[in-house]
Amino acid sequence: MKNILVIGAGRSTVYLIDYLLNNAAAHQWNITVADMDLQLAKSKTGAHPNAKAISFDINNAAQREAEIKNADLVISMLPAFMHGEVAKDCVRFGKHMATASYVSDLMKELDAEAKSKDIILMNEIGLDPGIDHASALKVIDEIHHKGGKIHTFKSFCGGLVAPESNDNPWGYKFSWNPRNVILAGQGTAQFLENGKIKFIPYNRIYSQTETIEVAGHGQFDAYANRDSIGYKDIYNLSDVKTMLRGTLRMPGYCIAWNSFVKLGLTDDSWKIHGSEKMTWAQLIDAFLPEGPGNMEQRMKEFLGKDASEDVLSKLKWLGIYEATPIPLKDATPAQILQDLLEKKWLLRETDKDMIVMQHYFGYTLDGKEKAIISSLVVKGQDQIHTAMAKTVGLPLAITVKNILNGKITSSGVQIPTTKNIYEDLLTELESFDVKFEEQEISL
Amino acid sequence: MKNILVIGAGRSTVYLIDYLLNNAAAHQWNITVADMDLQLAKSKTGAHPNAKAISFDINNAAQREAEIKNADLVISMLPAFMHGEVAKDCVRFGKHMATASYVSDLMKELDAEAKSKDIILMNEIGLDPGIDHASALKVIDEIHHKGGKIHTFKSFCGGLVAPESNDNPWGYKFSWNPRNVILAGQGTAQFLENGKIKFIPYNRIYSQTETIEVAGHGQFDAYANRDSIGYKDIYNLSDVKTMLRGTLRMPGYCIAWNSFVKLGLTDDSWKIHGSEKMTWAQLIDAFLPEGPGNMEQRMKEFLGKDASEDVLSKLKWLGIYEATPIPLKDATPAQILQDLLEKKWLLRETDKDMIVMQHYFGYTLDGKEKAIISSLVVKGQDQIHTAMAKTVGLPLAITVKNILNGKITSSGVQIPTTKNIYEDLLTELESFDVKFEEQEISL
Repeated sequence: MKNILVIGAGRSTVYLIDYLLNNAAAHQWNITVADMDLQLAKSKTGAHPNAKAISFDINNAAQREAEIKNADLVISMLPAFMHGEVAKDCVRFGKHMATASYVSDLMKELDAEAKSKDIILMNEIGLDPGIDHASALKVIDEIHHKGGKIHTFKSFCGGLVAPESNDNPWGYKFSWNPRNVILAGQGTAQFLENGKIKFIPYNRIYSQTETIEVAGHGQFDAYANRDSIGYKDIYNLSDVKTMLRGTLRMPGYCIAWNSFVKLGLTDDSWKIHGSEKMTWAQLIDAFLPEGPGNMEQRMKEFLGKDASEDVLSKLKWLGIYEATPIPLKDATPAQILQDLLEKKWLLRETDKDMIVMQHYFGYTLDGKEKAIISSLVVKGQDQIHTAMAKTVGLPLAITVKNILNGKITSSGVQIPTTKNIYEDLLTELESFDVKFEEQEISL
Repeated sequence: MKNILVIGAGRSTVYLIDYLLNNAAAHQWNITVADMDLQLAKSKTGAHPNAKAISFDINNAAQREAEIKNADLVISMLPAFMHGEVAKDCVRFGKHMATASYVSDLMKELDAEAKSKDIILMNEIGLDPGIDHASALKVIDEIHHKGGKIHTFKSFCGGLVAPESNDNPWGYKFSWNPRNVILAGQGTAQFLENGKIKFIPYNRIYSQTETIEVAGHGQFDAYANRDSIGYKDIYNLSDVKTMLRGTLRMPGYCIAWNSFVKLGLTDDSWKIHGSEKMTWAQLIDAFLPEGPGNMEQRMKEFLGKDASEDVLSKLKWLGIYEATPIPLKDATPAQILQDLLEKKWLLRETDKDMIVMQHYFGYTLDGKEKAIISSLVVKGQDQIHTAMAKTVGLPLAITVKNILNGKITSSGVQIPTTKNIYEDLLTELESFDVKFEEQEISL
């Protein structure tokens, strides 16, 4: 029997844990689901004979060490900044580890020791990062294998709401951590365009966007992700001249969201003293420059050329001009905005979310200009069985299986950019209807 | 004999130390000027019989303690974040302390102990903060004494270049720490306007400005300082409805500077990997969106309605479109911009700087609307004898004298908002031609 320890039983773990439970008997796995909230952990394991739920405190070193010692592989579903102690213990006790988070500096430091102990620290094995790497590298490797030279790589992903559940003007509901949505884009985006380095700071990340068309699903707004250039080497794109990774939103979302950026409502760096004594109307009044007219008219004046009917109606729909009390004490503008949006953008019980991913590969082969567009659309079933949980959880689960059954023998810090990891992963994902459509174009 | 220890002998100390030396014999002071750079300290003390210069390392605890023990009063001219150890030792050994910096949280924590030992921790006793407090409170106290109710208080200050030395299109040269100029305005400004709290985030602090007229000196741009509301209680302005503190720049400076904010060039939070391999032209190209035309045309398109001839010529004058190599390795955008501006905005040997300060007090007295405008303009003599060094150094020096001669008997953390501190200070400053002009208006 192999022991798998899953730390964290939050909302992105439903498909992960179901897969592990469904495969436990066949592969002789014991699954331990550990969470601060024992009831939550129990709700995920049910009465499965190969599974147990435990109450778990990541900061209790004795418990953490004992559970990790007892495991063959540890899956950390904690927030990214909490992986550190788990990773150190995994390496110390010679246990495999898997996370859906970006490779951290601490993780990199553990690479040599992990290799010496022949264990794998598998990272970025969710959706984005995760499926994006796997699906991009599959096509990149194929083009390179044929002798093609890739000059353009653009890749976009968005966690959205399915059209049939899209009943609010923003076309957005939360299918993952709302805080990350509020703070998204902060920093400076870096990418390559026609051989040149390009920077977009936060103050124009939601206005300097592009429009992406996904066949059969229409158009989407796309804004640039923080660091695209760092992936040039990781993706073996030594000839690339244009390289951009970005995030998709429904058309019109970005320029409307930019209103919040301009107002200052996405700022998480300072606290509004006495915010609990303010209403939303007062908050907007405080951020809007003084001027003639009511607040809606002042907002229109403030937004200038961006003040379309669409933007103004999106803002009004949120109720930001109403005298609704702010329920948070001494909160940051970002916290106050998040509180409002969590109510307005709630994914309801029967709502379906939708994942959209699209890669564009422009390349030269035998002197001819060609392109491949590879697209993925996955819809969720309901509030619990989201496309987000599915596409984050299944890559983790499948890859954990492939590590434990010896199909993946790599060691040290890994992400799914090598064929031995991505090939079986993408094949098995297709059986869950997570399948890319490829379109070849001769230009 | 009383011993005064001056820690730090940088460029804002020239008037401070000269005043202390000139008054040393009459008041029986021994002056010790302590700096990392012994030659710099020596250049300030000269061969004065009551003064000595020492090489001093603030992080050498033994030396720091010995020197502070030996002093009756310590003046810290270090950067603000370095006052902590000095303040702790001053309180421990029962010595007075004076700085021109804002009261820090650490300083507040030392208040009770300082009071119990009957020593004063005198802060914010330079120009801004310093003279601004003293001169504002003088008028506020007078209006209150007459029974007036102040509803409006606006206060502006700028360290500028004198018109006779103003030979660049920005109307700006560095008379103090350039880094502070580059990063100025970051955060969110908070103030009161017509009884309402108002916020201005960094992305529009240089566009949401106002124009201030100073009689005989023309107009200036004014942008809001970070926290004006915090001064409501400190200034005893319980009835105030409009309260704003701001910074002055020459007309046209702010909207031109806003170009750098929009581009992302004032960002100090991330490093441009390989900046030493780029030219200025490439840097601007990286921050400008792609588009038709040369870089000047793209800048014009980018700035939109703000792209006046004046703004465009200011930018061009800096040479930002030229293929000048960037001399800094892996630097932040703000560091790269500072490096350029330090060359372009150098205060030359015979240049004169200029301090402009203006307060506006709107009040009701005997049922009538009145206003007082109180203005200060101080010009420097040259690159060394700047108005900045004069107006930062003299308030410190004069107040130190008044502490040591027993005119000021307050203890604990103080700023110059009380009559026992500001009255003698403002009177003596007038003998140095640092004199406010007051204008009364009946509305």
